[in-house]
Amino acid sequence: MLQSKLFTKIERSFPKDEEALNARFLERAGFIYKNSAGVYSYLPLGWRVIKKISDIVREEMDAIGGQEIFMAALHDKRYLKATGRWDVEVVFKVIEGDKREPSFNISWTHEEVIAEIAKKYVNSYRDLPFAAYQIQTKFRNEPRAKSGLLRGREFLMKDLYSFHESEEDLSRYYEEVGKAYIKVFGRCGLKAFYTLAAGGEFTASNTHEFQVASEVGEDTIFACSSCMYAENSEVSKLKDGGKCPKCGEKIKETKSIEIGNIFPLGTKYSEAFNLNFLDKEGNKKLVVMGSYGIGVSRLMATAVEVSHDEKGIIWPEAIAPFRVHLLALGESSAKDIYNDLQNKDVEVLYDDRDVSPGEKLVESDLIGLPFRAVVSNKTGNMIEVKRRNEKESKLMDKKEFIKIVS
Amino acid sequence: MLQSKLFTKIERSFPKDEEALNARFLERAGFIYKNSAGVYSYLPLGWRVIKKISDIVREEMDAIGGQEIFMAALHDKRYLKATGRWDVEVVFKVIEGDKREPSFNISWTHEEVIAEIAKKYVNSYRDLPFAAYQIQTKFRNEPRAKSGLLRGREFLMKDLYSFHESEEDLSRYYEEVGKAYIKVFGRCGLKAFYTLAAGGEFTASNTHEFQVASEVGEDTIFACSSCMYAENSEVSKLKDGGKCPKCGEKIKETKSIEIGNIFPLGTKYSEAFNLNFLDKEGNKKLVVMGSYGIGVSRLMATAVEVSHDEKGIIWPEAIAPFRVHLLALGESSAKDIYNDLQNKDVEVLYDDRDVSPGEKLVESDLIGLPFRAVVSNKTGNMIEVKRRNEKESKLMDKKEFIKIVS
Repeated sequence: MLQSKLFTKIERSFPKDEEALNARFLERAGFIYKNSAGVYSYLPLGWRVIKKISDIVREEMDAIGGQEIFMAALHDKRYLKATGRWDVEVVFKVIEGDKREPSFNISWTHEEVIAEIAKKYVNSYRDLPFAAYQIQTKFRNEPRAKSGLLRGREFLMKDLYSFHESEEDLSRYYEEVGKAYIKVFGRCGLKAFYTLAAGGEFTASNTHEFQVASEVGEDTIFACSSCMYAENSEVSKLKDGGKCPKCGEKIKETKSIEIGNIFPLGTKYSEAFNLNFLDKEGNKKLVVMGSYGIGVSRLMATAVEVSHDEKGIIWPEAIAPFRVHLLALGESSAKDIYNDLQNKDVEVLYDDRDVSPGEKLVESDLIGLPFRAVVSNKTGNMIEVKRRNEKESKLMDKKEFIKIVS
Repeated sequence: MLQSKLFTKIERSFPKDEEALNARFLERAGFIYKNSAGVYSYLPLGWRVIKKISDIVREEMDAIGGQEIFMAALHDKRYLKATGRWDVEVVFKVIEGDKREPSFNISWTHEEVIAEIAKKYVNSYRDLPFAAYQIQTKFRNEPRAKSGLLRGREFLMKDLYSFHESEEDLSRYYEEVGKAYIKVFGRCGLKAFYTLAAGGEFTASNTHEFQVASEVGEDTIFACSSCMYAENSEVSKLKDGGKCPKCGEKIKETKSIEIGNIFPLGTKYSEAFNLNFLDKEGNKKLVVMGSYGIGVSRLMATAVEVSHDEKGIIWPEAIAPFRVHLLALGESSAKDIYNDLQNKDVEVLYDDRDVSPGEKLVESDLIGLPFRAVVSNKTGNMIEVKRRNEKESKLMDKKEFIKIVS
């Protein structure tokens, strides 16, 4: 893409009303726009990152048999009334026209909706197991929304739900999802830990969270060399320097970001929606459910939090909005290289603007694409190539460059 | 995909609470689930159709320089207050926690939000023109929601917004979008007419609508052999059998479905958000805007309304959820054919279920994929191939079949 055509621009300074590093970088570089506290719009660069993360999530969910759907966002109050969650604090309620009482809420999660849908299709053990997922906007009225995309009042989430005839079958699939999650995070360039946590609003049993170690996270994890626990873990009373209850090793405390979680829901939602099936012996039983989330927009923010330097973002290759940032400094052969890269299907942002070399270099570091390729009078027929995560640049010819980035 | 793994099933009868043909077929065949009046969830088959339509829309919007974004759905009331649209009847309002007065609305359209975003980036004529679009859920509190996906209270829409330094430049782009729209509808298998209409809530000037002729539509168009007018056209007082005001030919009245519209917005929204730019002479001027919609979920419904028979849906090839419905009747070589089709990247739904041949054939017509391929004891090594929109089937070998569907 020609940078001169991109409608967003890099701001000269960081936004004044953002505390969180992810929002400060992403807003300044034109990836996102802040509409209200915790409410953001994704601009062209930011939306490209979200689409790449979403595609990785889709591939891994499809690989474990997830069927993609897209559920309603406007939920009649019968859904949350059925499970006693209508008055949960973070639920945004919707009023129709002049009515005084709300009759809908906007989607904060979809356990109730998918349980009702599943009831239509599940009759016998032959209809189980199955899993369905969606990538969709969720709305939660967070009292404190100061962490940029880490804790939005509106955010993008992948939610997967699975349906089983027994706790054993749920456990089997639960393990499968856990492995798929580690793949998703790995492909997005994030090292995630699998930790044990208490259930919160969704389930009474223990659940697992996926945490990325970072000082800015809202969560704390306790870990020894082989075990990890979330702060609210029922393993309880863990202390920095204390002993691991499993292996006796010394525990270390680290603040961290939760980027995914998986919940064995049991039969709570099946019970509320009469989601039954007939087993092989003809006995009526409740379906056992699981629910599994990944914060898609939070994942983008996490990548920024854990991968940056003082100059800007350092995008992991798989989720960078473009692979190459091609900078033309003065008269150069950049146009030809741009065309060649496009013909090779290499995603390239070509800074063809009439601004100073200094400005282009500073902005390029801020945007943070994996490869920066500078072409100028000085480089002649050669290209000065620098990886964003390395200090030294290398001079190479077009052929070598295209080979590296293709 | 193996049909035995698809979690949805075909219902034995049409839903009792649906009047609209599109919803009757789509619900019975498991493409959608009705959550409330005018509120639907897209199940695996339906979501595949939506994704195909969305991809076509994206390609054509990208081709005319549209930059894809994804704007916030939760709108602070400052947006609609600024343009006097806060009290428009179809706007769903959102209350936070215990508050009595709503402070947000959920997205019914995005002119205000994009005008505010554009203000951040537009300073000079050099920053114009540009266009940005999104595919996103819209919410409108329709008093009558009885037309299935044709008039939802929650629906999927592509909305494109363009920004110009003059009315002339807007007109130029407006024509370009009109042509792109005709391409979108054509690729989706729909023949759309371009008609003149009055502006409604969005603009005071005349706008254009894209109509697909159908008896179930809520709109009426008046047309001669070369001109088309919408019912609410300011060309005014058109009558069936009357004379066309442009060419004098006889006018015919047809009920029709509006599947897209384009609005020259002028400076209404720029004025409300102080969206100015400096022209070449250094004079401060208001940016001229255009707004362009396509109802993505409505397009799916329209395809069903105009392309079906008494047995079921007849999907246009480009938006069918799968290309081939492979039916195994009893013992057969279907599994091999399924694998071969998948290796050739042909999208195939393989009915591997243990149900009667009659049931499989009836359900296949209802789902309506472009090619039905029957393999049975009777056909041996041959395949009985029938196009959904033709009456006769043909017996052919695997090589010929794969050539046709690849």
